[in-house]
Amino acid sequence: MDVWYTEKHQNEAGITLKVKDILYGGQSEFQKVDIIDTEAYGKMLLLDGLVMTSEKDEFFYHEMISHIPMLAHSRPESVLVIGGGDGGTVREVLKYNSVKEVVLCEIDEMVIDASKEFLPSIAGMLDDKRVKINIEDAIKYIERQKNRFDVILIDSTDPLGPGVGLFTEEFYNNVKQALRKGGIMVAQTESPLACQEDFKLINILLNKVFPIVKPYFAPVPTYPGAYWSWTFCSNDVQPKLNNETFAAQLEKETKYYNRDIHAAAFAMPNYVKSILSL
Amino acid sequence: MDVWYTEKHQNEAGITLKVKDILYGGQSEFQKVDIIDTEAYGKMLLLDGLVMTSEKDEFFYHEMISHIPMLAHSRPESVLVIGGGDGGTVREVLKYNSVKEVVLCEIDEMVIDASKEFLPSIAGMLDDKRVKINIEDAIKYIERQKNRFDVILIDSTDPLGPGVGLFTEEFYNNVKQALRKGGIMVAQTESPLACQEDFKLINILLNKVFPIVKPYFAPVPTYPGAYWSWTFCSNDVQPKLNNETFAAQLEKETKYYNRDIHAAAFAMPNYVKSILSL
Repeated sequence: MDVWYTEKHQNEAGITLKVKDILYGGQSEFQKVDIIDTEAYGKMLLLDGLVMTSEKDEFFYHEMISHIPMLAHSRPESVLVIGGGDGGTVREVLKYNSVKEVVLCEIDEMVIDASKEFLPSIAGMLDDKRVKINIEDAIKYIERQKNRFDVILIDSTDPLGPGVGLFTEEFYNNVKQALRKGGIMVAQTESPLACQEDFKLINILLNKVFPIVKPYFAPVPTYPGAYWSWTFCSNDVQPKLNNETFAAQLEKETKYYNRDIHAAAFAMPNYVKSILSL
Repeated sequence: MDVWYTEKHQNEAGITLKVKDILYGGQSEFQKVDIIDTEAYGKMLLLDGLVMTSEKDEFFYHEMISHIPMLAHSRPESVLVIGGGDGGTVREVLKYNSVKEVVLCEIDEMVIDASKEFLPSIAGMLDDKRVKINIEDAIKYIERQKNRFDVILIDSTDPLGPGVGLFTEEFYNNVKQALRKGGIMVAQTESPLACQEDFKLINILLNKVFPIVKPYFAPVPTYPGAYWSWTFCSNDVQPKLNNETFAAQLEKETKYYNRDIHAAAFAMPNYVKSILSL
């Protein structure tokens, strides 16, 4: 029997993946949480029926959300990950010796528990002693944080469901308050192909809040459009590689990121410039 | 009634697109030729059931196969396009004032005829007086060409069906003979994600034939993996932008390509370096 999982975007286009097994299905207070095993991408986490991460392609997303800001910072010690309950972003951040503390602020404990059980290659570092897991709505959490973090990574779902409040000017202003001097925020900012309107609106908001706003791009095969963006924001830091020595060491084990990719990711296609009216 | 077209790759993963209309279906001597109209990507050309090009995403592929070599060349006058019966690559090449002649060597006239009728935004320049259409197997055609072309673009199907002979050491050697001094060949070289084995084998062959072999990368949303490669090959030319003035003028109308993208496209992800044993 052939079983296929199909994720359709805007009822126009989608991906379809051959399923080996359905491993877990839960309904939390916030969303439906599923884990399936696929031929092409291995085990995958789905939230409300949408692909969040997979064993085989997670490296594109997790390396790009973390290493660009971590290597642009002069010495990241305190890091906040918002969302990201699968643990992949935390795992990447922990590779830096300078990091003393990683706070993971995830609204839905079921995401963490399912990821720890079924996706150990992604979630396996969540028990590291430098990690503080805070099960709370990041909208509330961030209001209490002032001048505290060197790097804040918004590893959220799409701007719908529990993620919607993480895409507002008020939220970004609170993130800005939570950054130390020399601090950097990176947010996942949707597909510049399949989600052009969201990508544009988020960038307009970020430009209201931060003086330095630089989108960057990479493939994420299992996401809508398979071509994704993150946006680098700071009051005072440009996204240039700032720690060449550590980058050289790190890229011995990364699968997508390297020093050439760091610079190249910021090359903006012409049609994306048009979307942003640049 | 909802109608969906689904293209599955290696019976593991695929894309699915909502269909508005089926416009054409033909069976040539070589392959099945279909034109469908889709919600997400407009009208599309399919060969043997596989997506070749679409109105909405064709610019990624056609700009990247053509402008990288055309702008690396000092003055391209004579260009050969192998395959590419949809006319998109020819359209891009004709943007250069220096070009005096574009030979399109396409094995299957039905592809040209269907594209002219249903995809005029792509095929519309095939009647330009600088274009010479040659309906012939490129394997035979290339044997007769010596020291003739400045740029040769292999805009082929995948290495199966009528395209298979375009991925051999013998064929690449004949292409090399057909290049003038300072000449450049670019071939589409499959997905570095969904077709890793093909990508690797083609690169091994190209390295046997050409001293300069440089793969480059861009998204192509409707192709397997949605992340594609082309490989730049030459005896004596590096893929650097060589005509800054013309590039600046050209990028006023390109949708993907610009001068930043030219350099950035050659940044090679770490896992791709591993595939190529670099």
